[in-house]
Amino acid sequence: MSVKVITVGEDILGANDEKARANKSRLDKYGILTINIMSSPGAGKTSLILSTIKHLRKKTRIAVIEGDVASSVDADKVNELGIPVIQINTAGGCHLDANMVEKALNDLPLKDTDLLFIENVGNLICPNAFALGEDRRVMIASLPEGDDKPHKYPAMFADTDVILLNKIDLQPYLDFNTDAFKKVVTGLNPDVTIFPVSCKTGTGMAAWFAWLESTVKNKKKK
Amino acid sequence: MSVKVITVGEDILGANDEKARANKSRLDKYGILTINIMSSPGAGKTSLILSTIKHLRKKTRIAVIEGDVASSVDADKVNELGIPVIQINTAGGCHLDANMVEKALNDLPLKDTDLLFIENVGNLICPNAFALGEDRRVMIASLPEGDDKPHKYPAMFADTDVILLNKIDLQPYLDFNTDAFKKVVTGLNPDVTIFPVSCKTGTGMAAWFAWLESTVKNKKKK
Repeated sequence: MSVKVITVGEDILGANDEKARANKSRLDKYGILTINIMSSPGAGKTSLILSTIKHLRKKTRIAVIEGDVASSVDADKVNELGIPVIQINTAGGCHLDANMVEKALNDLPLKDTDLLFIENVGNLICPNAFALGEDRRVMIASLPEGDDKPHKYPAMFADTDVILLNKIDLQPYLDFNTDAFKKVVTGLNPDVTIFPVSCKTGTGMAAWFAWLESTVKNKKKK
Repeated sequence: MSVKVITVGEDILGANDEKARANKSRLDKYGILTINIMSSPGAGKTSLILSTIKHLRKKTRIAVIEGDVASSVDADKVNELGIPVIQINTAGGCHLDANMVEKALNDLPLKDTDLLFIENVGNLICPNAFALGEDRRVMIASLPEGDDKPHKYPAMFADTDVILLNKIDLQPYLDFNTDAFKKVVTGLNPDVTIFPVSCKTGTGMAAWFAWLESTVKNKKKK
Protein backbone atom coordinates (compact mmCIF):
# COMPACT_ATOMS: atom_id res chain seq x y z
CA MET A 1 0.00 0.00 0.00
CA SER A 2 1.43 3.34 -0.97
CA VAL A 3 1.56 6.23 1.47
CA LYS A 4 -1.10 8.86 0.99
CA VAL A 5 0.36 12.32 0.51
CA ILE A 6 -1.71 15.37 1.37
CA THR A 7 -0.24 18.58 0.03
CA VAL A 8 -1.75 21.25 2.21
CA GLY A 9 -0.83 24.13 -0.11
CA GLU A 10 -2.75 22.65 -3.03
CA ASP A 11 -5.81 21.99 -0.88
CA ILE A 12 -5.89 25.55 0.36
CA LEU A 13 -5.38 27.00 -3.09
CA GLY A 14 -8.00 24.68 -4.62
CA ALA A 15 -10.62 25.74 -2.09
CA ASN A 16 -9.65 29.38 -2.63
CA ASP A 17 -9.97 29.07 -6.41
CA GLU A 18 -13.46 27.64 -6.06
CA LYS A 19 -14.54 30.52 -3.83
CA ALA A 20 -12.88 33.02 -6.20
CA ARG A 21 -14.91 31.63 -9.10
CA ALA A 22 -18.09 32.06 -7.04
CA ASN A 23 -17.14 35.68 -6.28
CA LYS A 24 -16.47 36.30 -9.98
CA SER A 25 -19.87 34.89 -11.04
CA ARG A 26 -21.57 37.09 -8.48
CA LEU A 27 -19.71 40.20 -9.68
CA ASP A 28 -20.31 39.27 -13.36
CA LYS A 29 -24.05 39.20 -12.71
CA TYR A 30 -23.90 42.91 -11.89
CA GLY A 31 -21.42 43.69 -14.70
CA ILE A 32 -18.87 44.98 -12.17
CA LEU A 33 -15.28 45.28 -13.37
CA THR A 34 -13.15 44.03 -10.47
CA ILE A 35 -9.49 44.95 -10.14
CA ASN A 36 -7.10 43.28 -7.68
CA ILE A 37 -4.34 45.83 -6.92
CA MET A 38 -1.07 44.45 -5.60
CA SER A 39 2.32 45.93 -4.71
CA SER A 40 5.01 46.29 -2.04
CA PRO A 41 4.10 48.38 1.00
CA GLY A 42 4.14 52.06 0.08
CA ALA A 43 4.32 51.70 -3.70
CA GLY A 44 1.14 53.75 -4.10
CA LYS A 45 -1.96 51.50 -4.11
CA THR A 46 -4.09 53.86 -2.03
CA SER A 47 -2.84 56.95 -3.88
CA LEU A 48 -3.78 55.29 -7.17
CA ILE A 49 -7.27 54.44 -5.91
CA LEU A 50 -7.84 57.96 -4.53
CA SER A 51 -6.66 59.67 -7.75
CA THR A 52 -8.78 57.34 -9.86
CA ILE A 53 -11.88 57.95 -7.74
CA LYS A 54 -11.45 61.72 -8.11
CA HIS A 55 -11.12 61.42 -11.87
CA LEU A 56 -13.79 58.83 -12.66
CA ARG A 57 -16.46 59.23 -10.00
CA LYS A 58 -18.75 61.42 -12.12
CA LYS A 59 -19.00 58.78 -14.85
CA THR A 60 -18.41 55.55 -12.94
CA ARG A 61 -19.86 54.14 -9.73
CA ILE A 62 -16.88 52.90 -7.72
CA ALA A 63 -16.61 50.73 -4.59
CA VAL A 64 -13.48 49.68 -2.71
CA ILE A 65 -12.32 46.79 -0.53
CA GLU A 66 -9.20 47.65 1.52
CA GLY A 67 -6.95 44.86 2.79
CA ASP A 68 -4.45 45.52 5.58
CA VAL A 69 -2.77 43.63 8.39
CA ALA A 70 -4.04 46.30 10.77
CA SER A 71 -5.67 49.76 10.90
CA SER A 72 -8.26 51.43 8.71
CA VAL A 73 -6.17 54.42 7.60
CA ASP A 74 -6.66 53.64 3.89
CA ALA A 75 -10.40 52.93 4.16
CA ASP A 76 -10.85 56.18 6.09
CA LYS A 77 -9.37 58.14 3.17
CA VAL A 78 -11.73 56.45 0.68
CA ASN A 79 -14.68 56.95 3.00
CA GLU A 80 -13.93 60.68 3.18
CA LEU A 81 -14.62 60.83 -0.57
CA GLY A 82 -18.08 59.32 0.00
CA ILE A 83 -17.25 56.05 -1.77
CA PRO A 84 -18.57 52.72 -0.37
CA VAL A 85 -15.62 50.96 1.26
CA ILE A 86 -15.06 47.86 3.40
CA GLN A 87 -11.85 47.39 5.39
CA ILE A 88 -10.56 43.83 5.82
CA ASN A 89 -8.00 43.42 8.61
CA THR A 90 -6.09 40.17 8.17
CA ALA A 91 -4.71 40.15 11.75
CA GLY A 92 -1.23 39.15 10.65
CA GLY A 93 -2.20 37.45 7.38
CA CYS A 94 0.02 38.53 4.49
CA HIS A 95 -2.58 38.45 1.69
CA LEU A 96 -6.31 38.61 1.01
CA ASP A 97 -8.18 35.45 0.06
CA ALA A 98 -11.48 34.81 -1.72
CA ASN A 99 -13.29 34.03 1.51
CA MET A 100 -12.48 37.43 3.00
CA VAL A 101 -13.61 39.13 -0.21
CA GLU A 102 -16.90 37.19 -0.22
CA LYS A 103 -17.69 38.59 3.24
CA ALA A 104 -16.86 42.13 2.10
CA LEU A 105 -19.11 41.76 -0.98
CA ASN A 106 -22.05 41.05 1.34
CA ASP A 107 -21.73 44.60 2.68
CA LEU A 108 -21.26 46.50 -0.60
CA PRO A 109 -24.02 48.00 -2.82
CA LEU A 110 -23.29 45.70 -5.78
CA LYS A 111 -26.37 46.83 -7.73
CA ASP A 112 -25.00 50.37 -7.77
CA THR A 113 -21.37 49.57 -8.66
CA ASP A 114 -19.57 49.59 -12.03
CA LEU A 115 -16.00 49.28 -10.80
CA LEU A 116 -14.63 47.53 -7.70
CA PHE A 117 -11.07 48.05 -6.53
CA ILE A 118 -9.66 45.46 -4.15
CA GLU A 119 -6.49 46.82 -2.53
CA ASN A 120 -4.50 43.78 -1.45
CA VAL A 121 -2.11 43.64 1.52
CA GLY A 122 1.26 45.27 0.69
CA ASN A 123 3.38 42.26 -0.23
CA LEU A 124 5.14 41.24 -3.47
CA ILE A 125 4.90 37.50 -2.81
CA CYS A 126 1.83 35.77 -1.37
CA PRO A 127 -1.10 37.82 -2.79
CA ASN A 128 -0.18 36.49 -6.22
CA ALA A 129 -1.17 32.92 -5.27
CA PHE A 130 -4.71 33.78 -4.12
CA ALA A 131 -7.35 34.62 -6.74
CA LEU A 132 -10.13 36.80 -5.29
CA GLY A 133 -12.65 36.80 -8.15
CA GLU A 134 -11.06 39.68 -10.06
CA ASP A 135 -11.28 40.42 -13.80
CA ARG A 136 -7.86 42.05 -13.94
CA ARG A 137 -4.71 42.12 -11.86
CA VAL A 138 -2.98 45.47 -11.62
CA MET A 139 0.41 45.71 -10.00
CA ILE A 140 2.24 48.84 -8.92
CA ALA A 141 6.02 48.95 -9.01
CA SER A 142 7.58 52.18 -7.80
CA LEU A 143 10.92 53.63 -8.89
CA PRO A 144 12.46 53.89 -5.40
CA GLU A 145 12.14 50.09 -5.01
CA GLY A 146 14.78 49.64 -7.73
CA ASP A 147 14.78 48.15 -11.21
CA ASP A 148 15.91 44.67 -10.01
CA LYS A 149 12.60 43.72 -8.39
CA PRO A 150 11.30 41.59 -11.31
CA HIS A 151 14.39 39.35 -10.90
CA LYS A 152 13.67 38.88 -7.21
CA TYR A 153 9.85 38.58 -7.19
CA PRO A 154 9.17 37.10 -10.64
CA ALA A 155 5.81 35.41 -9.99
CA MET A 156 3.87 38.60 -9.41
CA PHE A 157 5.40 40.38 -12.41
CA ALA A 158 4.63 37.32 -14.56
CA ASP A 159 0.95 37.05 -13.58
CA THR A 160 -0.30 40.63 -13.77
CA ASP A 161 -2.29 42.24 -16.60
CA VAL A 162 -1.10 45.79 -15.99
CA ILE A 163 1.93 47.32 -14.29
CA LEU A 164 1.78 50.92 -13.15
CA LEU A 165 5.36 52.12 -12.84
CA ASN A 166 4.77 54.78 -10.20
CA LYS A 167 6.74 57.72 -8.73
CA ILE A 168 8.37 58.66 -12.04
CA ASP A 169 8.60 62.21 -10.63
CA LEU A 170 11.55 60.89 -8.56
CA GLN A 171 13.52 59.66 -11.61
CA PRO A 172 16.05 62.56 -11.50
CA TYR A 173 17.10 61.54 -7.98
CA LEU A 174 17.32 57.76 -8.52
CA ASP A 175 19.41 55.25 -10.51
CA PHE A 176 16.31 53.39 -11.79
CA ASN A 177 16.89 52.08 -15.34
CA THR A 178 13.46 51.90 -17.01
CA ASP A 179 14.73 50.07 -20.10
CA ALA A 180 16.39 47.36 -17.98
CA PHE A 181 13.19 47.04 -15.90
CA LYS A 182 10.96 46.72 -18.98
CA LYS A 183 13.27 44.18 -20.60
CA VAL A 184 13.06 41.78 -17.63
CA VAL A 185 9.32 42.35 -17.18
CA THR A 186 8.42 41.68 -20.80
CA GLY A 187 10.64 38.58 -20.71
CA LEU A 188 8.50 37.26 -17.84
CA ASN A 189 5.22 38.59 -19.20
CA PRO A 190 5.18 39.50 -22.93
CA ASP A 191 1.53 40.69 -22.93
CA VAL A 192 1.67 43.03 -19.93
CA THR A 193 0.62 46.66 -20.34
CA ILE A 194 2.98 49.10 -18.59
CA PHE A 195 1.89 52.64 -17.68
CA PRO A 196 4.65 54.91 -16.32
CA VAL A 197 2.87 57.32 -13.96
CA SER A 198 3.17 59.66 -11.03
CA CYS A 199 0.09 59.51 -8.80
CA LYS A 200 1.49 62.60 -7.06
CA THR A 201 1.89 64.91 -10.08
CA GLY A 202 -0.65 63.21 -12.39
CA THR A 203 1.91 62.57 -15.14
CA GLY A 204 0.91 59.58 -17.27
CA MET A 205 -2.38 59.03 -15.46
CA ALA A 206 -4.52 59.84 -18.53
CA ALA A 207 -3.45 56.59 -20.20
CA TRP A 208 -4.40 54.58 -17.09
CA PHE A 209 -7.80 56.32 -16.86
CA ALA A 210 -8.46 55.65 -20.56
CA TRP A 211 -7.57 51.95 -20.19
CA LEU A 212 -9.80 51.68 -17.13
CA GLU A 213 -12.81 53.45 -18.71
CA SER A 214 -12.65 51.29 -21.79
CA THR A 215 -12.28 48.11 -19.69
CA VAL A 216 -15.28 49.08 -17.53
CA LYS A 217 -17.33 49.66 -20.71
CA ASN A 218 -16.34 46.31 -22.21
CA LYS A 219 -17.36 44.54 -19.02
CA LYS A 220 -20.78 46.24 -19.03
CA LYS A 221 -21.43 45.11 -22.62
CA LYS A 222 -21.01 41.42 -21.78
CA MET B 1 -14.68 13.58 25.34
CA SER B 2 -13.51 16.96 24.19
CA VAL B 3 -12.32 17.55 20.64
CA LYS B 4 -8.58 17.79 20.20
CA VAL B 5 -7.53 21.05 18.60
CA ILE B 6 -4.28 21.25 16.69
CA THR B 7 -3.22 24.77 15.90
CA VAL B 8 -0.85 24.36 12.99
CA GLY B 9 0.61 27.86 13.27
CA GLU B 10 1.76 27.30 16.85
CA ASP B 11 3.33 23.96 15.98
CA ILE B 12 5.30 25.45 13.12
CA LEU B 13 6.42 28.43 15.17
CA GLY B 14 7.34 26.23 18.15
CA ALA B 15 9.53 23.97 16.00
CA ASN B 16 11.08 27.06 14.41
CA ASP B 17 11.85 28.64 17.79
CA GLU B 18 13.63 25.48 18.91
CA LYS B 19 15.77 25.43 15.78
CA ALA B 20 16.45 29.17 16.14
CA ARG B 21 17.73 28.59 19.70
CA ALA B 22 20.06 25.89 18.37
CA ASN B 23 21.36 28.28 15.69
CA LYS B 24 21.94 30.95 18.33
CA SER B 25 23.91 28.57 20.62
CA ARG B 26 26.07 27.57 17.67
CA LEU B 27 26.75 31.21 16.71
CA ASP B 28 27.34 32.18 20.37
CA LYS B 29 30.06 29.53 20.61
CA TYR B 30 32.03 31.46 17.99
CA GLY B 31 31.13 34.88 19.43
CA ILE B 32 29.46 35.90 16.16
CA LEU B 33 27.09 38.87 16.31
CA THR B 34 24.14 37.91 14.10
CA ILE B 35 21.79 40.50 12.65
CA ASN B 36 18.46 39.67 10.98
CA ILE B 37 17.74 42.49 8.50
CA MET B 38 14.12 42.93 7.47
CA SER B 39 12.22 45.42 5.30
CA SER B 40 9.84 45.89 2.37
CA PRO B 41 11.22 45.05 -1.07
CA GLY B 42 13.59 47.78 -2.21
CA ALA B 43 13.97 49.63 1.11
CA GLY B 44 17.74 49.16 0.99
CA LYS B 45 18.77 45.93 2.76
CA THR B 46 21.45 45.00 0.23
CA SER B 47 22.70 48.59 -0.05
CA LEU B 48 23.05 48.71 3.73
CA ILE B 49 25.01 45.44 3.80
CA LEU B 50 27.31 46.52 0.95
CA SER B 51 28.04 49.94 2.54
CA THR B 52 28.68 48.34 5.90
CA ILE B 53 31.04 45.73 4.42
CA LYS B 54 33.04 48.49 2.70
CA HIS B 55 33.33 50.45 5.93
CA LEU B 56 33.99 47.66 8.47
CA ARG B 57 35.78 44.92 6.56
CA LYS B 58 39.28 45.96 7.65
CA LYS B 59 38.41 45.62 11.33
CA THR B 60 35.63 43.02 11.28
CA ARG B 61 35.30 39.63 9.61
CA ILE B 62 31.86 39.64 7.98
CA ALA B 63 29.74 36.88 6.43
CA VAL B 64 26.32 37.16 4.78
CA ILE B 65 23.25 34.98 4.21
CA GLU B 66 20.98 36.33 1.46
CA GLY B 67 17.30 35.34 1.39
CA ASP B 68 15.24 35.81 -1.77
CA VAL B 69 12.26 34.23 -3.46
CA ALA B 70 14.38 33.85 -6.60
CA SER B 71 17.71 34.91 -8.16
CA SER B 72 21.15 35.49 -6.66
CA VAL B 73 21.56 39.14 -7.70
CA ASP B 74 22.16 40.27 -4.10
CA ALA B 75 24.59 37.46 -3.22
CA ASP B 76 26.52 38.16 -6.42
CA LYS B 77 27.14 41.75 -5.27
CA VAL B 78 28.40 40.57 -1.86
CA ASN B 79 30.55 37.91 -3.49
CA GLU B 80 32.19 40.53 -5.71
CA LEU B 81 33.52 42.15 -2.53
CA GLY B 82 35.19 38.85 -1.56
CA ILE B 83 32.92 38.27 1.45
CA PRO B 84 31.65 34.73 2.26
CA VAL B 85 27.98 34.60 1.23
CA ILE B 86 25.26 31.95 0.92
CA GLN B 87 22.12 32.58 -1.12
CA ILE B 88 18.90 30.97 0.09
CA ASN B 89 16.14 30.83 -2.53
CA THR B 90 12.78 30.22 -0.86
CA ALA B 91 11.02 29.20 -4.11
CA GLY B 92 7.92 31.24 -3.36
CA GLY B 93 8.28 31.31 0.44
CA CYS B 94 7.76 34.79 1.88
CA HIS B 95 10.27 34.62 4.76
CA LEU B 96 13.38 32.82 5.96
CA ASP B 97 13.10 30.25 8.74
CA ALA B 98 15.60 28.81 11.21
CA ASN B 99 15.92 25.56 9.27
CA MET B 100 17.07 27.37 6.12
CA VAL B 101 19.57 29.37 8.16
CA GLU B 102 20.94 26.20 9.79
CA LYS B 103 21.73 24.79 6.34
CA ALA B 104 23.47 28.03 5.32
CA LEU B 105 25.56 28.04 8.52
CA ASN B 106 26.97 24.64 7.52
CA ASP B 107 28.60 26.30 4.51
CA LEU B 108 30.01 29.44 6.17
CA PRO B 109 33.46 29.82 7.79
CA LEU B 110 32.09 30.38 11.31
CA LYS B 111 35.52 30.22 12.95
CA ASP B 112 36.60 33.22 10.92
CA THR B 113 33.49 35.37 11.35
CA ASP B 114 32.76 38.22 13.82
CA LEU B 115 29.57 39.56 12.25
CA LEU B 116 26.87 37.72 10.30
CA PHE B 117 24.20 39.58 8.35
CA ILE B 118 21.09 37.63 7.40
CA GLU B 119 19.16 39.53 4.74
CA ASN B 120 15.57 38.32 5.01
CA VAL B 121 13.06 38.16 2.13
CA GLY B 122 11.61 41.60 1.33
CA ASN B 123 8.33 41.52 3.25
CA LEU B 124 6.97 43.63 6.14
CA ILE B 125 4.77 40.87 7.55
CA CYS B 126 5.83 37.21 7.84
CA PRO B 127 9.60 37.44 8.54
CA ASN B 128 8.74 38.96 11.91
CA ALA B 129 7.17 35.69 13.15
CA PHE B 130 10.21 33.49 12.42
CA ALA B 131 13.24 33.76 14.70
CA LEU B 132 16.43 32.68 12.92
CA GLY B 133 18.92 32.63 15.80
CA GLU B 134 19.81 36.32 15.59
CA ASP B 135 21.12 38.56 18.39
CA ARG B 136 19.52 41.67 16.99
CA ARG B 137 16.72 42.56 14.60
CA VAL B 138 17.36 45.51 12.34
CA MET B 139 14.58 46.86 10.21
CA ILE B 140 14.84 49.31 7.35
CA ALA B 141 12.00 51.71 6.63
CA SER B 142 12.52 53.99 3.64
CA LEU B 143 11.04 57.44 3.16
CA PRO B 144 9.31 56.73 -0.18
CA GLU B 145 7.18 54.03 1.52
CA GLY B 146 5.40 56.75 3.50
CA ASP B 147 5.18 57.65 7.18
CA ASP B 148 1.99 55.58 7.75
CA LYS B 149 3.65 52.16 7.52
CA PRO B 150 3.93 51.60 11.32
CA HIS B 151 0.11 51.90 11.52
CA LYS B 152 -0.33 49.28 8.82
CA TYR B 153 2.44 46.78 9.70
CA PRO B 154 2.73 47.25 13.48
CA ALA B 155 4.19 43.85 14.45
CA MET B 156 7.50 44.31 12.71
CA PHE B 157 7.97 47.87 13.99
CA ALA B 158 7.12 46.66 17.52
CA ASP B 159 9.61 43.76 17.54
CA THR B 160 12.78 45.28 16.10
CA ASP B 161 15.84 46.53 18.04
CA VAL B 162 16.93 49.09 15.46
CA ILE B 163 15.19 50.97 12.66
CA LEU B 164 17.27 52.48 9.87
CA LEU B 165 15.17 55.22 8.32
CA ASN B 166 16.73 55.11 4.85
CA LYS B 167 16.70 57.33 1.73
CA ILE B 168 16.64 60.58 3.71
CA ASP B 169 18.33 62.16 0.65
CA LEU B 170 14.86 62.06 -0.99
CA GLN B 171 13.18 64.08 1.81
CA PRO B 172 12.95 67.33 -0.26
CA TYR B 173 10.84 65.50 -2.87
CA LEU B 174 8.50 63.62 -0.52
CA ASP B 175 5.75 64.38 2.03
CA PHE B 176 7.27 62.05 4.65
CA ASN B 177 6.73 63.42 8.17
CA THR B 178 9.59 62.11 10.34
CA ASP B 179 8.09 63.36 13.61
CA ALA B 180 4.77 61.63 12.91
CA PHE B 181 6.64 58.43 11.97
CA LYS B 182 8.76 58.47 15.13
CA LYS B 183 5.76 59.16 17.33
CA VAL B 184 3.91 56.04 16.14
CA VAL B 185 7.05 53.89 16.20
CA THR B 186 8.04 54.82 19.76
CA GLY B 187 4.42 54.23 20.82
CA LEU B 188 4.74 50.66 19.52
CA ASN B 189 8.34 50.18 20.62
CA PRO B 190 9.63 52.63 23.28
CA ASP B 191 13.17 51.13 23.37
CA VAL B 192 13.88 51.11 19.64
CA THR B 193 16.97 52.90 18.31
CA ILE B 194 16.29 54.90 15.13
CA PHE B 195 19.09 55.94 12.76
CA PRO B 196 18.06 58.29 9.91
CA VAL B 197 20.45 57.45 7.05
CA SER B 198 21.08 57.55 3.35
CA CYS B 199 22.94 54.45 2.16
CA LYS B 200 23.38 56.28 -1.14
CA THR B 201 25.05 59.49 0.10
CA GLY B 202 26.43 58.13 3.39
CA THR B 203 24.58 60.69 5.52
CA GLY B 204 23.96 59.36 9.03
CA MET B 205 25.83 56.10 8.45
CA ALA B 206 28.55 56.90 11.02
CA ALA B 207 26.07 56.43 13.88
CA TRP B 208 25.01 53.02 12.49
CA PHE B 209 28.64 51.91 12.08
CA ALA B 210 29.45 53.01 15.64
CA TRP B 211 26.46 51.10 17.05
CA LEU B 212 27.45 48.02 15.09
CA GLU B 213 31.14 48.09 16.09
CA SER B 214 30.29 48.47 19.74
CA THR B 215 27.69 45.67 19.55
CA VAL B 216 30.18 43.34 17.84
CA LYS B 217 32.74 44.09 20.60
CA ASN B 218 30.23 43.43 23.38
CA LYS B 219 29.34 40.09 21.83
CA LYS B 220 33.00 39.04 21.63
CA LYS B 221 33.51 39.83 25.33
CA LYS B 222 30.79 37.43 26.43
